[in-house]
Amino acid sequence: MLKIACAQLDYIIGDFEGNTEQIINSIIKAKHEGADLVCFSELAICGYPPRDFLEFDDFIDRSNASIEKILAYTNDIGVILGAPIKNPDVEGKDLFNAALFIYQNKIQFTYHKTLLPTYDIFDEYRYFEPGKTFDIFEFKGYKIAITICEDIWNIGNDNPLYTICPMDEIINHSPDFMVNLSASPFSYTQREERLRILKENANKYQLPIFYINQCGAQTELIFDGGSIVMNTNGSVYDEMTYFTPSINVYDVKEVLGGNSNIMPKTFLKIEKIHDALVMGVKSYFDKLSLSKAMVGLSGGIDSAVTLAITARALGHENTHAVLMPGPFSSDHSVEDAISLSEKLNVSYDIIPIESVYESYLHLLKPVFGNRPFDITEENIQARIRGMILMAMSNKFGYIVLNTSNKSEAAVGYGTLYGDMCGGLSVIGDLYKTEVYELANFMNTEKIIIPINTIEKPPSAELRPDQFDSDSLPDYDILDQILFLYIEKRKGPEEIAKLGFDRELVRKVLRLVNMNEFKRYQTAPVLRVSPKAFGIGRRMPIVGKYLS
Amino acid sequence: MLKIACAQLDYIIGDFEGNTEQIINSIIKAKHEGADLVCFSELAICGYPPRDFLEFDDFIDRSNASIEKILAYTNDIGVILGAPIKNPDVEGKDLFNAALFIYQNKIQFTYHKTLLPTYDIFDEYRYFEPGKTFDIFEFKGYKIAITICEDIWNIGNDNPLYTICPMDEIINHSPDFMVNLSASPFSYTQREERLRILKENANKYQLPIFYINQCGAQTELIFDGGSIVMNTNGSVYDEMTYFTPSINVYDVKEVLGGNSNIMPKTFLKIEKIHDALVMGVKSYFDKLSLSKAMVGLSGGIDSAVTLAITARALGHENTHAVLMPGPFSSDHSVEDAISLSEKLNVSYDIIPIESVYESYLHLLKPVFGNRPFDITEENIQARIRGMILMAMSNKFGYIVLNTSNKSEAAVGYGTLYGDMCGGLSVIGDLYKTEVYELANFMNTEKIIIPINTIEKPPSAELRPDQFDSDSLPDYDILDQILFLYIEKRKGPEEIAKLGFDRELVRKVLRLVNMNEFKRYQTAPVLRVSPKAFGIGRRMPIVGKYLS
Repeated sequence: MLKIACAQLDYIIGDFEGNTEQIINSIIKAKHEGADLVCFSELAICGYPPRDFLEFDDFIDRSNASIEKILAYTNDIGVILGAPIKNPDVEGKDLFNAALFIYQNKIQFTYHKTLLPTYDIFDEYRYFEPGKTFDIFEFKGYKIAITICEDIWNIGNDNPLYTICPMDEIINHSPDFMVNLSASPFSYTQREERLRILKENANKYQLPIFYINQCGAQTELIFDGGSIVMNTNGSVYDEMTYFTPSINVYDVKEVLGGNSNIMPKTFLKIEKIHDALVMGVKSYFDKLSLSKAMVGLSGGIDSAVTLAITARALGHENTHAVLMPGPFSSDHSVEDAISLSEKLNVSYDIIPIESVYESYLHLLKPVFGNRPFDITEENIQARIRGMILMAMSNKFGYIVLNTSNKSEAAVGYGTLYGDMCGGLSVIGDLYKTEVYELANFMNTEKIIIPINTIEKPPSAELRPDQFDSDSLPDYDILDQILFLYIEKRKGPEEIAKLGFDRELVRKVLRLVNMNEFKRYQTAPVLRVSPKAFGIGRRMPIVGKYLS
Repeated sequence: MLKIACAQLDYIIGDFEGNTEQIINSIIKAKHEGADLVCFSELAICGYPPRDFLEFDDFIDRSNASIEKILAYTNDIGVILGAPIKNPDVEGKDLFNAALFIYQNKIQFTYHKTLLPTYDIFDEYRYFEPGKTFDIFEFKGYKIAITICEDIWNIGNDNPLYTICPMDEIINHSPDFMVNLSASPFSYTQREERLRILKENANKYQLPIFYINQCGAQTELIFDGGSIVMNTNGSVYDEMTYFTPSINVYDVKEVLGGNSNIMPKTFLKIEKIHDALVMGVKSYFDKLSLSKAMVGLSGGIDSAVTLAITARALGHENTHAVLMPGPFSSDHSVEDAISLSEKLNVSYDIIPIESVYESYLHLLKPVFGNRPFDITEENIQARIRGMILMAMSNKFGYIVLNTSNKSEAAVGYGTLYGDMCGGLSVIGDLYKTEVYELANFMNTEKIIIPINTIEKPPSAELRPDQFDSDSLPDYDILDQILFLYIEKRKGPEEIAKLGFDRELVRKVLRLVNMNEFKRYQTAPVLRVSPKAFGIGRRMPIVGKYLS
């Protein structure tokens, strides 16, 4: 009999003390629950992704010291742990992304990750030498294969990224089951992809799989947990909690028995996004030991949804709204914002910007002369609001959350250092149409986002009678074009051929490329799609492609 | 007889029309000067680095169409051209980083880059499959080896990054000389490194080398040209211009003859940095078709040096200074700033911020109550200045240049959305002590930077009698600690052992790590050191390592 504990935990990058304590506590707990073997996720010891901290010898030394500490707790329980370890060879990258099998206070077996994702948000070949040996180990009568995350993903793809597939080698040793340590970030398509890949692996190799994922957000990357135990026949034996760290113990014999334990759940896309954003905000604050957030509330949909998500993540008592009506704000904007704050039971201040706005205009009058009102004055209003938020943040310790959506970030419809300010972008990976979807979803049980906020035509209210539709196409059209360009990486001709106006496509793509400089200077964006702005999308600022 | 033209040109990323025209003109020019073969740099067709544009089929299609155009000009001259080309295999990355030998209107030979730099600012394994075949081609009686940039760098290193060395294979075909297409970004140590590596290659393989580098800045990356022709014996036959695109023609027989043509020049570190920054600013404006720049001038050393570099890059007539004295500005600050502007013959405005500052304080009074003056009020002053600059930028089309230095960016001694604003950071890769060096260098022939600006103790002047030394250690000490941590990636213990106070080291490293969030939201930094903030240094924002 072999009992395996799968521990999907939330680590803080580089917090060796905290991570080690958590790992040791989980080992003790697993032992207490009768487990023979406890498995942690990829690079659990330092948290994933450690990025360039990996280039510091001191960082690796501390990681090794933590492993030393953990050894002491493995006298009578096996542990599979992800950690960066030094490559002893002179040639090649300095590290391996490794999985250690520890037992009886010793490292008994080491596996090196072979397929190193180096695309989108991943940079693994920056740090790691690929593994080149494909062995297994035996424990209590079972032959166990270990793989790490990407290692099992080069299967069932039309366009395989790699020229090898580690399991094709490992399977020659006839393992009884496979343990996969992962740090697989959330996107709204990722769970279904994972299930598909695990099923392909189970079917191809006729092996049960214990898939252990990291759980918790790391700045912009949301690791959703949802660890999976899969039978030999490719059906789900168990699917662990999403967005909540947990430890489950499984009897290998039962898993090998081949009966599926559960019916896989179905989740709405927007439900997954909602839960991911709530965890994303919460992790950011928890891990920085911060508690209080502030959102500038305009009465529009973006700030409303941002505030509602924030209140769910941090509690209404830790969430503060600031209403900053300007010379062109409509009455309903202030009313809608107040109504939302009251519904959420969130404290708020009203700070009208007109006096400071006038004082800027007066100060700049000698320089500006009689030049007409233009984008300058619009931006001044947006920047005064940004400045008030930052001043409140400095004085009271609130963290300002950014309220930009993906559509406006894409086309540069936002003011740098104004409404584009803030420490974390909450809905910056949601197109405007998805922001509405999320608002409606949050209104399912009871109305939280005011109906008027959802129904009125979007406007920045920075000049009289201004509407987004004055300078942008309808969001249904815009968002489709953006999706095809950003997520699907289609060119202008391909997009036009799908039925969009050729000139409009050209204009939109040009806006996206021209506004790279703005996105470069904005907050990290909680990633919920397969292609978010930020570290996963690296574009030249100075260039002349489609611009 | 074989004459080779080396063309070190300045490309705009993705500007296929412009790049192709430039390449064709250079082919015509080379032919006119009697060349049999003309060599361009790495990925010349699209400019280096194209980043994620490479993921767009449309981008590769346009690149291929440009190559088609160029074919027509190669009836009687050979061309070696860098271009991304599709990997025909289903497995592996979709592209190769290739060098094409074109002659008689056909692609005659293709070489694939094998060593794909994936560290610091480089992301090549994100896009490219490494080459696996090592062949040469013959042209007019000569056997010619091609390598691309990094391919020749895995030699003479204590800690080789790769497990193979392409030239070890290629040399088996007994080439007569090697052509290396490069896109090797400037840092103040890079020229000497290049000469060393080329010498190692020439000596090991007993081959002359034609090394062709890109020339021109791409946003933050400065490609300095300085292409090199090296004899078999490892001495420099010619070193082309730095920071200026050019085409030179060489007679292969003379190069093979083995006599060195020149004595390699010596350059001061600070002279190289100066020239690099001037080109960096100029390229940014030229490539974006912009001309006018603006700098907020405080009377301090950072903005003074930034303004002086800008005036050299763009001309005094395209450079504008804005003086924004505040409630705590000293008289000499305004005097020094005026004196500099006049020496540079640069126009300036004086816009005192006190009235707007008072209006913010008045507006926020009901919320702030009687809380004492703190960092909030300091930041308000800095942000008003940022806002005035941005308003002037919006109204008149000036681009605001950022004036932060590397020391303050490192420890977070700057205001986000305030003095950290701007489209491009000019001196953000210079430690404060290096900014002084640069000021003194620029004063060599005649005094440009006022002596008082150089000699007075640095101060942000955001509260009465404030000096940088109140909250930071002396810059001589601080900069050394920062250099050891950032450039040398030493841990706290290692740094302390070099003779620095243990507590101070801990405090400084903590500041660096805690302020990652600020650097994340700032402008691209012109890179002049081997490790600059920005794309080449990727750190977690949320973490707990040394913080």
